[in-house]
Amino acid sequence: MKFTGEAMEKNKITKAVLGRLPRYLTFLKGFSEGEEQYVSATRIAKELSLGEVQVRKDLGVVCGKGKPKLGYRIPELIKSIEVCLGQKKTTLAVLVGAGRLGKALLEYDGFEKFGVNIAAAFDCNEKPLRLASGLEILPMSQFGDFCKSNDVKIGIITVGEGSAQIVCDEMVANGITAIWNFAPCKICVPEGVIFLQENLALSLAYLNNKLMEQNRKEFDI
Amino acid sequence: MKFTGEAMEKNKITKAVLGRLPRYLTFLKGFSEGEEQYVSATRIAKELSLGEVQVRKDLGVVCGKGKPKLGYRIPELIKSIEVCLGQKKTTLAVLVGAGRLGKALLEYDGFEKFGVNIAAAFDCNEKPLRLASGLEILPMSQFGDFCKSNDVKIGIITVGEGSAQIVCDEMVANGITAIWNFAPCKICVPEGVIFLQENLALSLAYLNNKLMEQNRKEFDI
Repeated sequence: MKFTGEAMEKNKITKAVLGRLPRYLTFLKGFSEGEEQYVSATRIAKELSLGEVQVRKDLGVVCGKGKPKLGYRIPELIKSIEVCLGQKKTTLAVLVGAGRLGKALLEYDGFEKFGVNIAAAFDCNEKPLRLASGLEILPMSQFGDFCKSNDVKIGIITVGEGSAQIVCDEMVANGITAIWNFAPCKICVPEGVIFLQENLALSLAYLNNKLMEQNRKEFDI
Repeated sequence: MKFTGEAMEKNKITKAVLGRLPRYLTFLKGFSEGEEQYVSATRIAKELSLGEVQVRKDLGVVCGKGKPKLGYRIPELIKSIEVCLGQKKTTLAVLVGAGRLGKALLEYDGFEKFGVNIAAAFDCNEKPLRLASGLEILPMSQFGDFCKSNDVKIGIITVGEGSAQIVCDEMVANGITAIWNFAPCKICVPEGVIFLQENLALSLAYLNNKLMEQNRKEFDI
């Protein structure tokens, strides 16, 4: 049984594409039901001030090619985008390490738009602590039970270097299969576990490098 | 006058390349002066457990091709990497918005390794506030003077949506030419200003999408 269309399997969905999908979705949902059946990539591009080539590529990855001269069937396109964004089924995530960075992430808007819900945070404190948002920071002793009984799939690591590997191992032992690591160190995950290393310094390094490049051009007489 | 070699101009240095440069640098600095003159990409790859093709590509972007059968002259390679990383001249950055995310960034290790120093943070508070790290959070009234007298080039925006554009405009007005925006909204910068939009939610969306892809493969009998 094939669970989804082939298009999505072949073309990898990048972060940049994912970032544009909510805009397409908002636009498409603006059509009243029955009002119009089809929408062309040209029209979407125009309305959202995006390049037409880019819109065609993005929608191609998500939903394949539209019908010649008609474009995409609106309800189908909406459904495909929602599937990509995980909006049909929210994935639960937990965060370990409720220091400043951890708390900043807990406050960060926009995760739910992409179908992820940070269900709880954990820290080495003994007593549970409730944040203003209503979210609880639980002691690590409750970590395993929480993950198993809530079928948590994503783990976010915001502890320091020294504990990152231990936390990661505990996540994997409790059924987590995708890990987002903010600790500035290498950690090992077993095969089959999806791993994403975040390095905020790299963004700044990239910006600095662009700046230096620009300066070099000015000197390049 | 040409300020640097051609290699760097032609090939763009990506975040991934920048991320590996400190490892090369540490390895290269392990050679005592005069001990060995040259090092091959093959040897670097082996010692750092990296793919040889990748090492060749990375060093090619930074320093051009090595000498056949010899490889790279160690002191030259060190110098080229240091230039790329901006280590020969630290760029000063300021941060505006000292909430949780802002403070988390101020605490984040590793910016200096890439030649950037966050010299001060600003917030709408009236009185200066000194963090444990020694860094001061200054009132916005001092922003312009600080930027001009310290020749600050990079601005980091960690205020909310509502103030991001105002902060950005003030940065540009005070000589900042590269902006890293964490506020989850579109902001406009004049031509010539380098701009990088950070969206942490996208990393989580990407991870979730990978997870869904994996699940689909499991269903794909």
